[in-house]
Amino acid sequence: MKKQKTNGTFWIYGHHAVMAAIFNPNRNKLLLKMTKEAALDKAVTKEIPSQIVTRNEIEALLPPGAVHQGLALQVKPLLSLNLDELLNQTKNQEKTVILMLDQVTDPHNIGAILRSAAAFEAAGVILPDANAPEESGTLAKSACGGLEIVPLIRVSNLVRSIETLKKAGFWIIGMDGTAEKTMAQDQLPTKAVFILGSEGDGMRRLTAENCDYMLKLPISNKMESLNVSNAAAITLYEFNR
Amino acid sequence: MKKQKTNGTFWIYGHHAVMAAIFNPNRNKLLLKMTKEAALDKAVTKEIPSQIVTRNEIEALLPPGAVHQGLALQVKPLLSLNLDELLNQTKNQEKTVILMLDQVTDPHNIGAILRSAAAFEAAGVILPDANAPEESGTLAKSACGGLEIVPLIRVSNLVRSIETLKKAGFWIIGMDGTAEKTMAQDQLPTKAVFILGSEGDGMRRLTAENCDYMLKLPISNKMESLNVSNAAAITLYEFNR
Repeated sequence: MKKQKTNGTFWIYGHHAVMAAIFNPNRNKLLLKMTKEAALDKAVTKEIPSQIVTRNEIEALLPPGAVHQGLALQVKPLLSLNLDELLNQTKNQEKTVILMLDQVTDPHNIGAILRSAAAFEAAGVILPDANAPEESGTLAKSACGGLEIVPLIRVSNLVRSIETLKKAGFWIIGMDGTAEKTMAQDQLPTKAVFILGSEGDGMRRLTAENCDYMLKLPISNKMESLNVSNAAAITLYEFNR
Repeated sequence: MKKQKTNGTFWIYGHHAVMAAIFNPNRNKLLLKMTKEAALDKAVTKEIPSQIVTRNEIEALLPPGAVHQGLALQVKPLLSLNLDELLNQTKNQEKTVILMLDQVTDPHNIGAILRSAAAFEAAGVILPDANAPEESGTLAKSACGGLEIVPLIRVSNLVRSIETLKKAGFWIIGMDGTAEKTMAQDQLPTKAVFILGSEGDGMRRLTAENCDYMLKLPISNKMESLNVSNAAAITLYEFNR
């Protein structure tokens, strides 16, 4: 049932992201490069092949300006859950929240959303398989460990996934600045999927048409929108409140 | 009373950030470079010296990978308010919220916080003068127009500013993951300053000691903290709720 990602390996960097990957038993770890100053204890690195290297050697592997704190870990992408597995895992939970992202493509934003999803115990984050970035060091760094905790589920068709989620008892709520009702005004369901669209264009028409209803976060009319990761964080916070 | 910043000019880029700067009468605008495709109407650019240029010419001015959408505007930093002016402006408001950032240095985070501050109508964002980045294109881009709306106030001494704010009737609340009470459990004051520290080390000891009290946002024990801009967004949202 598990879908093996075969798109090679990448480097996770930064203290939190690397530590979370090391402690994730499902993460396939290939090689750890550490500066002398940042070197982790043998008890932590255990059987991971490790090298002490210079900062320059680490920086040569990473995007320019990456804040690596002396740690870079070469890994394979996680074996991602599919939607049926996620629904199976969550079916006995009383309260479940899932995020679905439509047209969100910036790995910093997706990473930051995973971090909040982990902090607010979302069951998963669903992305369209096309048009969304792969796991990467940038995404893992922004997720600050969240990538190792919250399943990132890629689906080929958002609308079909919405149907599946509805059948499993989830309410599908589109977050849309033009909605009439705020989240706080709504008696939120116990099983909810919140859909967030891109900052520029929002969600696609067909995605919006398949929502059960729309809600907004109340913001000043001086601003068009919140940053999508901030909107996601507030949405999850309000759901748990 | 106004303090003229003399640290030269910088380039604001991206549609929202540039438009917000153009429409900010207090923003000193020097030169607008636009690609042919992104060229703005004469009615908008008015007396701003403008040039039609290639994407490459714009990219040569900006950090690598900057998403400029064909627009770059050379500007001077804003004349920043000082704390007394801010307090004077807000003294007749019934409800006022101010953010204070201690040790937050990433311009993306500060920009994102300004964006949320504008969206949730915070009166200002206070930063220590030392150790915090200047206005820049990166900060303005992340603020998505918020830099033109919310006063960014630099102070030489946070503790002295806290004293001034207390005398003006503000409650000083430190946001700290180890606090006992959540924001939602507190009967929040109508005039509040929320202090957010750096993600790594939180706020400095002396800053923490000068808070009236501490509150937290409720997050899973699997995660150490929220991203600081997400924490700021939720704090402002909850204050307004």
